[in-house]
Amino acid sequence: MHLTLEDIRQLEKRHRANLINSITGVKSANLIGTRNKECNTNLSVVSSVVHLGSNPALIGYIQRPRGVERHTFENIISTKKYTINSINSAITYPAHKTSARYPREKSEFEETGLTPEWLNDFYAPFVKESNIKIAMELVEVIPIPMNDTELVVGKVLEIYFPSAIYKTDGHLAVYETGTVGISGLDTYLSTEKIARYSYAKPDEPIIEI
Amino acid sequence: MHLTLEDIRQLEKRHRANLINSITGVKSANLIGTRNKECNTNLSVVSSVVHLGSNPALIGYIQRPRGVERHTFENIISTKKYTINSINSAITYPAHKTSARYPREKSEFEETGLTPEWLNDFYAPFVKESNIKIAMELVEVIPIPMNDTELVVGKVLEIYFPSAIYKTDGHLAVYETGTVGISGLDTYLSTEKIARYSYAKPDEPIIEI
Repeated sequence: MHLTLEDIRQLEKRHRANLINSITGVKSANLIGTRNKECNTNLSVVSSVVHLGSNPALIGYIQRPRGVERHTFENIISTKKYTINSINSAITYPAHKTSARYPREKSEFEETGLTPEWLNDFYAPFVKESNIKIAMELVEVIPIPMNDTELVVGKVLEIYFPSAIYKTDGHLAVYETGTVGISGLDTYLSTEKIARYSYAKPDEPIIEI
Repeated sequence: MHLTLEDIRQLEKRHRANLINSITGVKSANLIGTRNKECNTNLSVVSSVVHLGSNPALIGYIQRPRGVERHTFENIISTKKYTINSINSAITYPAHKTSARYPREKSEFEETGLTPEWLNDFYAPFVKESNIKIAMELVEVIPIPMNDTELVVGKVLEIYFPSAIYKTDGHLAVYETGTVGISGLDTYLSTEKIARYSYAKPDEPIIEI
């Protein structure tokens, strides 16, 4: 099937959102935890978390346009602290439920049954049910003028994970602990390792490691 | 296990790269196809493709720092055209092989055995073996000053995909056609649908759809 720019433009809005959110393939599935200055917690599912660099360790995510209420983003701006928590197959339902537009005074933790966890005096809440938990500090918000979205850049401060998935060379086998992916806006995918390959060099064969 | 900022800083470089590339969860697995003005083709595996918006349909990816040769990026800058092609389980080996640092005059198509495909007179090559193929036009390159990476923003011009995975509401079931994800720097994951949920609203139950 072949769709042109004009075909895509003419799609009904929700249909187009489903399609364009799907075409990039598997997306990461995370929950961003925050707490505002009044100590109300907030939790939000995101599928746009992206690795920016390892030294310093930087992670970004795409923030949707201003205009609607954006509790998570407001909390990040005002406190500079947030957490990124992996979604696993046991919590896809409550994770998806965090995407409902709850009023500002409601906490998605209470509304979805996910458990806030406070670790090492960090200001923002982690998700107890998650396997990989990252404490983040806001570094910069970079505007994407074309569509009024923003790239929120944060620095990794701390990481929590099960030691069983930590390989000797630093690789974290997140797929061994039920970490899921997201397809499109609303579909959760389990993952399974097919192959791990050696570092690719032009004149050397790649081997499975 | 708990790692602090200082622990992360002290990790050996490659170890840290493995770890930090793994912690964000499952990443999308795509090949970017380009052709320079001398008509040499280039192909590059990327795991940082991210959805930016649906109207207009925009997709981004993170370009690593300048300094080393970056053939794909140079071609995008000079021709404004590129393709994004999904990686499926049958081509993880050649896809990974495109990450080797081939000299400028070599084409990763020839070196890996993947097949260039020319569709609808588009300047850049698609990957014949891919199931989802996107023709892209460069819109903007946004610097990320913290680590000298860049967010490359492109507009979707055309999309090709198997009609069997196109649902009536626009969702593209990429997992039904063997689309894989990437964990860390070198690990390829198969994906399987767990659940698709209805749009979440505060006072309505979510149902599986």
